[in-house]
Amino acid sequence: MRAIPQTVATLPAWIAASVDFEHCYASDDARMALAIQLAGLNVEHATGGPFGAAVFDNAGALVAVGVNRVEPLKSSLAHAEIVALVAAQRKLGRARLNRDGGRYTLAASAQPCCQCYGAIVWAGIDKLLIGARTNDTQSLAGFDEGPLPQDWIGELERRGIEVARDLQRDAARAVLRAYAAQGGARY
Amino acid sequence: MRAIPQTVATLPAWIAASVDFEHCYASDDARMALAIQLAGLNVEHATGGPFGAAVFDNAGALVAVGVNRVEPLKSSLAHAEIVALVAAQRKLGRARLNRDGGRYTLAASAQPCCQCYGAIVWAGIDKLLIGARTNDTQSLAGFDEGPLPQDWIGELERRGIEVARDLQRDAARAVLRAYAAQGGARY
Repeated sequence: MRAIPQTVATLPAWIAASVDFEHCYASDDARMALAIQLAGLNVEHATGGPFGAAVFDNAGALVAVGVNRVEPLKSSLAHAEIVALVAAQRKLGRARLNRDGGRYTLAASAQPCCQCYGAIVWAGIDKLLIGARTNDTQSLAGFDEGPLPQDWIGELERRGIEVARDLQRDAARAVLRAYAAQGGARY
Repeated sequence: MRAIPQTVATLPAWIAASVDFEHCYASDDARMALAIQLAGLNVEHATGGPFGAAVFDNAGALVAVGVNRVEPLKSSLAHAEIVALVAAQRKLGRARLNRDGGRYTLAASAQPCCQCYGAIVWAGIDKLLIGARTNDTQSLAGFDEGPLPQDWIGELERRGIEVARDLQRDAARAVLRAYAAQGGARY
């Protein structure tokens, strides 16, 4: 397993033992499974909110991972998707991931909130995989996901970002339920 | 002048000599003037895009400043508003600035893009001051500002975030023109 390509300060320590950065995540299902696994482990270890995300290149290599770190880092920016995108851009050394002509996928265990939605527009992502829906996140775990454009999928697709929803939605919902059962903070 | 409460890596070196962290920015106009001054200096020093932002407490104390650092930091997250909000949260030690019961204002030299719009929803800001409009940014400097909810102001106001537009809009527009005249990168 390669060294974790992220700052120690941002990600919890269990990432190193739990994520295989050498594995090839060839399918959308394998990519979503990792995002949901990260969300679940973040709940289990009590290291943040019930959300995980990961960035992959077109061949399925794992570029970077993220989990929600809002409360541990005391930063409203530290959503899973943003933690993963910042780490991916730092690793690849560019502000728009696909500026190299490659195709990049972001898998998110739940539908991105308004903040992550906007970040995805600029990050150089070609495909967005979503597990749980916003109404799952709101009804099961009590999170407000904020205002989005009415046709939020169309707005992404018109910018060349493909969107696939409901991937392993039941598994993603189970993580939200586990968080609520623990009485996790809602923000 | 107090030490700059931000990491050296995030902000350009000229901030230390140009920003008075002891000054009281009592009026909305004084707060916007600082945001526009930051945007202009960022263009003049060629240290990022033509955008500046600053966070103030209710008494007018300057909490943190930000300028666009997308290209220098190779990060699509490094918009002026986000740089300022991250620094403010780090300085005050909480993920929602107004969790202390205080009122906080974010001044932005131009209307926030979709990413910064979403970030503002969660940051704990009570008032958003805007200089240039999005169509200024697009027509004068060529930036795409991304998709927003149709009633983006109403969505913020329903969440307790007051919005004031067109503050010193001409001065804010002049910075965008200066950037375009320099042939600055558009992203």
